[in-house]
Amino acid sequence: MYCLDRVPAVAASKPELRDAEPFKTVLSGNREAIAKLSMPDLEKILVATLTGMTTEEFNTEVKKWLETARDPRWKRPYTELVYQPMLEVLRHLRDNDYKTYIVTGGGQDFVRVYSEKVYGIPPEQVVGTAGATKLGYDKEGKPFLTKEPKLLLNDDKAGKPEGIHLMIGRRPYAAFGNSVGDREMLEWTGAGRGVRLKMLVLHDDANREYAYGPAEGLPDTKVGTFTEALLDEAKSKGWTVISMKNDWKQIFAFEKGGRSE
Amino acid sequence: MYCLDRVPAVAASKPELRDAEPFKTVLSGNREAIAKLSMPDLEKILVATLTGMTTEEFNTEVKKWLETARDPRWKRPYTELVYQPMLEVLRHLRDNDYKTYIVTGGGQDFVRVYSEKVYGIPPEQVVGTAGATKLGYDKEGKPFLTKEPKLLLNDDKAGKPEGIHLMIGRRPYAAFGNSVGDREMLEWTGAGRGVRLKMLVLHDDANREYAYGPAEGLPDTKVGTFTEALLDEAKSKGWTVISMKNDWKQIFAFEKGGRSE
Repeated sequence: MYCLDRVPAVAASKPELRDAEPFKTVLSGNREAIAKLSMPDLEKILVATLTGMTTEEFNTEVKKWLETARDPRWKRPYTELVYQPMLEVLRHLRDNDYKTYIVTGGGQDFVRVYSEKVYGIPPEQVVGTAGATKLGYDKEGKPFLTKEPKLLLNDDKAGKPEGIHLMIGRRPYAAFGNSVGDREMLEWTGAGRGVRLKMLVLHDDANREYAYGPAEGLPDTKVGTFTEALLDEAKSKGWTVISMKNDWKQIFAFEKGGRSE
Repeated sequence: MYCLDRVPAVAASKPELRDAEPFKTVLSGNREAIAKLSMPDLEKILVATLTGMTTEEFNTEVKKWLETARDPRWKRPYTELVYQPMLEVLRHLRDNDYKTYIVTGGGQDFVRVYSEKVYGIPPEQVVGTAGATKLGYDKEGKPFLTKEPKLLLNDDKAGKPEGIHLMIGRRPYAAFGNSVGDREMLEWTGAGRGVRLKMLVLHDDANREYAYGPAEGLPDTKVGTFTEALLDEAKSKGWTVISMKNDWKQIFAFEKGGRSE
């Protein structure tokens, strides 16, 4: 959403993009056409909107966007769409001297902007998809870092244990996921010595949040993927599967007191 | 030293290396010839001894080596050759709620093995030269990570601020260095808002430790490089230069009470 929203500003500073695809489609505002963009097209949008600026310019833009952007369904800032049980488990772990991390397929620099405020997790405890930066100097000799279009870590699937090794260098004692992208991280966690906690959240509540599978006959959507194979592996390895519908009284932190029973 | 010491074991498992350079020279034990190896030769040795094994095998080998290897001059384990003033400043910073990091040109996985025991710095607070890993599975389906010959971060010079951004995502409030490889890190630290501490240790005590320049007419050796230009920049930017000879009563932590005045 951030990248799509940034396209007009990027096209304003680079007019040659206005008539070039996929930027032309994004600028048209045609939601149906935007939803159909291919993966290489989306990658072009990521490169144009997430690289080429300094790290400080990027942070400023993300902060500005987070203040004004609203989720179209919930009509709230994205940073308010945080799960109450997730906040509770993070607090519980920290109260018991665990160090808590976010390990996300999302952009590391992006998530770091709000992780401390929203989850109580400082920037250095965010592991995400990350690109290279390059040191340069301005006219006064002041150094800056420019975000480069060179991928260092694709923090999804096998990239999650690889990213954990790179950024943390220790194996987790507990890991929590909600899609096929988390399978390898939970396997890696479970392969450690002694007791390890592995949990998966199943999004099975279309009314209160979203529902996606195709596991358990849930819709096979673009929101996320939780396959039957993942559910089978969870059962065979003793990973706990949490049903948002049945196990969570309250979903979002902004709800007061959760639903009535 | 670790990589050179590992060559015999690697050559034993890969006999084709025995007669191939630069391994033949290393196996000969000819110190003069080893000292003359070129950078591409040294890179071949790094690739052969630091990649191809699992992260767990690597950790085990490093631990074993650290237990038995001795520095030829000091006749002590390398992990005992730690500076007393460095331990004191780390403790002082942590006592005042700073988070302390090692940012090293050395191998990240290597330094992480002993950083907690020697410096009180946990593995996740070590930023170093780092390569990619690749997830695989053994016959029983247990996942492991293999160290790959693909460089992700060369944590030296411009790579230090780049590595700090990647691994920490925040600008340091204090940075300490001892060679030209630390220049960009101190510049990056100093470019932050408000007060920042920048310090350089000058190795100018050949008797108690080592002396290297060529700054101040100190020997231009292979041990390290502290240039006149770095000293000039330190003076012009107000970085504190610490003379090991004049400012440190005690150098190594193993010395009892330091030298007499």
